[in-house]
This record gives sequence, structure tokens and C-alpha cells, in this order.
Amino acid sequence: MRDILADGAEAVIAAVRKKATEIGALSNIAVVDSGANLKAFLRMDDALLGSLDVSIRKARTAALFGLATETLGELAQPGAPLYGIDSTNGGLILFGGGAPIVNAEGAVIGGVGVSGSTVENDTMLSAVGAAAANG
Amino acid sequence: MRDILADGAEAVIAAVRKKATEIGALSNIAVVDSGANLKAFLRMDDALLGSLDVSIRKARTAALFGLATETLGELAQPGAPLYGIDSTNGGLILFGGGAPIVNAEGAVIGGVGVSGSTVENDTMLSAVGAAAANG
Amino acid sequence: MRDILADGAEAVIAAVRKKATEIGALSNIAVVDSGANLKAFLRMDDALLGSLDVSIRKARTAALFGLATETLGELAQPGAPLYGIDSTNGGLILFGGGAPIVNAEGAVIGGVGVSGSTVENDTMLSAVGAAAANG
Amino acid sequence: MRDILADGAEAVIAAVRKKATEIGALSNIAVVDSGANLKAFLRMDDALLGSLDVSIRKARTAALFGLATETLGELAQPGAPLYGIDSTNGGLILFGGGAPIVNAEGAVIGGVGVSGSTVENDTMLSAVGAAAANG
Repeated sequence: MRDILADGAEAVIAAVRKKATEIGALSNIAVVDSGANLKAFLRMDDALLGSLDVSIRKARTAALFGLATETLGELAQPGAPLYGIDSTNGGLILFGGGAPIVNAEGAVIGGVGVSGSTVENDTMLSAVGAAAANG
Repeated sequence: MRDILADGAEAVIAAVRKKATEIGALSNIAVVDSGANLKAFLRMDDALLGSLDVSIRKARTAALFGLATETLGELAQPGAPLYGIDSTNGGLILFGGGAPIVNAEGAVIGGVGVSGSTVENDTMLSAVGAAAANG
Repeated sequence: MRDILADGAEAVIAAVRKKATEIGALSNIAVVDSGANLKAFLRMDDALLGSLDVSIRKARTAALFGLATETLGELAQPGAPLYGIDSTNGGLILFGGGAPIVNAEGAVIGGVGVSGSTVENDTMLSAVGAAAANG
Repeated sequence: MRDILADGAEAVIAAVRKKATEIGALSNIAVVDSGANLKAFLRMDDALLGSLDVSIRKARTAALFGLATETLGELAQPGAPLYGIDSTNGGLILFGGGAPIVNAEGAVIGGVGVSGSTVENDTMLSAVGAAAANG
């Protein structure tokens, strides 16, 4: 499988929504395919509107570089090797909440981005989403 | 209810996906709220990638003006009263496939956009989606 | 094969360049993958600079909709079903010179765009390129 | 010669691709002319998609200022003379992987950008590319 499928993308969103509900988070949840194009999205009721765009950029960032957004963020701090990379690709996100979606062979087949709660919660929720992608 | 809720948006997507599968259409399906901001989205497997953007613009167009996109399109032909309006709001769509989502009191609470098949199919599918929003 | 490979993309460019040289055309030649992201590019010496952007948009248009650009163009004339679609996806091209690249199973694996000569020449050259993709 | 020619640009890409293959790097390789406009490009199979844009920006940065990107980067750190310059010209890159292409008389005739591996590898590969430009 080269790209996440619609069923997998809906499984990601359902898993993140369920966990977010449990912890009281109101999340924007975005899934992109390996080409960084939107595959599925859900904005939970009363989720922050400004986090809509952030969630999609997190998913794109993770898929584009095959890294969790916080990992790319460490590499892009002042003085670090990739300082300034966040201005490429139309604007990347350097804090947690985006995770690559990887298939059984280790290939990146997409990315999930979660935004609307604390960075710690968003990071945890994106990992929950990535883990749910493969059933 | 001022805005379509997450459950309603997912019902719209499920209804359009089911009908699209029945008729062999591969659809991009977008739902926006009354603020014309994305609420839910699904790209069916093998749906045209170029229709992703079109589906979101159809949903936005319908929500922004409270009209089906083909109705706005009639008003925006050369010589008609709203000629040129399609260049506003970041770019509107003037052909069928976008429908406003209306609550029991007649207020616009969102819009649905479907793209990827013929204009006739997309128009029918968007009407199916709008009808599914209120359970 | 889900996406055109680097060897295939270079074969497309070599075939277009060879034919362009034969007919005295100076071409910009762009190849994108199925996600409409650039895979390979060459600007022949003295090719029109303004055609650089056009060639990439032609390749993207063809890959995004799985159609030759002139075919999409027919559907997007005033009064035709898709009038106005050219303003989507960041700007599409509606005249000839873009062709989808299709694999042996008929799936779109990319697109080629050629720009710099007459529309007739560009259209012919893009067909030459698409035919060269699969060896 | 005022600008790198198509043959030279293809020689740059072939040299970088060969060296990248030897060291196991998966590279996006971009060549621009002295006007900082794209001349040639190749995305190797499985190269990071997010590095596509980075490679082109590296090539542009190097051609625009006649400097390796890491050299400009030193001048643009907080407190250094050119701090903030990276937001000009549509977005520059301040880390290694972009190198100017210079002719026998020392004039800048283009730039090469390589992205997808470590900064160290990308920097080495861009130097390999710049050296290959003049045959």
C-alpha cells in the first residue's frame, strides 16, 4: 500500500476523536496521503477554529518529511542544522501534534495532524491516530 | 442549531459515500459550517486529486451564498447580474455539486461540496448530502 | 507502479527534447507524479522563460484530472459544464500541451507539460512525452 | 557563457545522482540559471517530498547571492549582519546544500540545490554538482 486508504483515514479520525473525548480535548483532526494532499478531516464541535489550519499543516509536515513535527522542530531551532526550514513548503509546523503514518514495510503512506488542545495532548493524540491507521 | 455539528457532518459524508459507491462515482466530499470553514472531508480511494480543491470550493460557495452552486452559476454568466462574482472569496465555483445545508427553521448551517464525477452526478450527490445532514 | 519513477521521467524529457530539436521547438518540459508534485524538469536553451511556469501547470493539470489539458479546456469554455474550473488548484491551464501519463493498467501515474512553441507543437510534444514514459 | 546550458544542467544532475546513489542518499536535485529560474530538476525515487521545495530554494539562494547557502547562513544568524535576509526573495535557505555554479572566468552562471539527506551529505553533493557543471 503506497497511500493511506479512505477506510484507514476514517479509522485514524475515529481513534483520535474517541481518545480526545475521553480526555476532554476538542480537536481538529487532519489526515493527508503520501503526496501531502488532504485525505480526511474532522473538526470536533467547539474545537478552536484557528487550529483547523494548524492541524492540516501538522499532517502535511509529518508526511513531507516522514518525521513527527516535534522531531523536525528540534532540528530547526536557532543554531540547529535545519534552522529556517519552517518557511518552506508553504509553511511547516515545528511543535508536536503531527505524526507520519507508516505501513508494515516502514514506508510513509501519509500523516496525521491534531490541534486544539495542549501541545502535549495534541502530540499524544497524533500518535494514537498514527497507530490506528493500519487496523 | 447555528452550525452543522460533527455528527451531522459525518452523516453527510457517509450518505454521499454510500450513494457514490452505488453509482460507481469516486468522490471528494467536503462539509463546511456556516462560517464557510471546513468541518469534515473525505477523499474516496482513486477519486480525482484535482477535485479535492473543487469540492471544498463548492461547499464554501454554497454556504457563503446559501445557494446551490449551479443556481449561483446561472446568476454569474456573462450578461447576468452577478457576472464576475466567482473571483471573490478566494474563488467560487459556478457549476453543480455544492448545496447549502439548512436546518428545520430554514437557516443555512453549512454547505456540502461533491466533486469527481460528472456535473450531473456531483449535483445529485450534493443534494443527497444536504438531505442527510439533519438525521 | 503507482507513480512515475525517475528513470521514466528522464525518458519523457529525453523524448520530448529530441523531438523538439527535430522540429526546431525550444521547450520547457515538466514531469509531475500522481500527486502532482514535480518529478523532473528541463528548460531547453533559449526556451521562453514565461513558459516555465506554464509547462509545470500543464503537467499538474493533466495529472490532477487525468485528462489532456485541451480536453479539460473544452469542458471549461463559457457555457460548458466546468466553466471556471481553471481558477482552482492554484491555477490550471486549459489549452494543449499537458498530457496524463498512464501505466499499463490505465492508472494515472503522472503528467507531462510542454510549453514554448505553438499550441499545436506543444500538444504533439506532450503526447510524445507521455508515450515515452513506459519504455 | 552567461547562463548554464541545458547540457551543463543535466551533467550536474547526473553527477549528483551518481554520487548520491553511491552513498545511499535519496536526493531532490535542482539547477537554476543566473536569473534564479529553474533550469533542470530531478527527484530521485523515494526522496523526501518536503525536500523538493527546499532543493529549489537552495539553488535559488546560491544563485541569487553567489554564495553557498551555509555561507549566507553564517551571515544571517541572530546578531550577524544579514539577520532576517531569509524572508526576502520569497524565502531563502540558510543551511548547507546550495552552491553557486561559476564559469571559468569566475562569473555566477547558476546554482545547484540538493536536499533529502543530512545537511553534511547535501552540502557535499551540491559541491559535487557545482564542480560537474563545466564538463
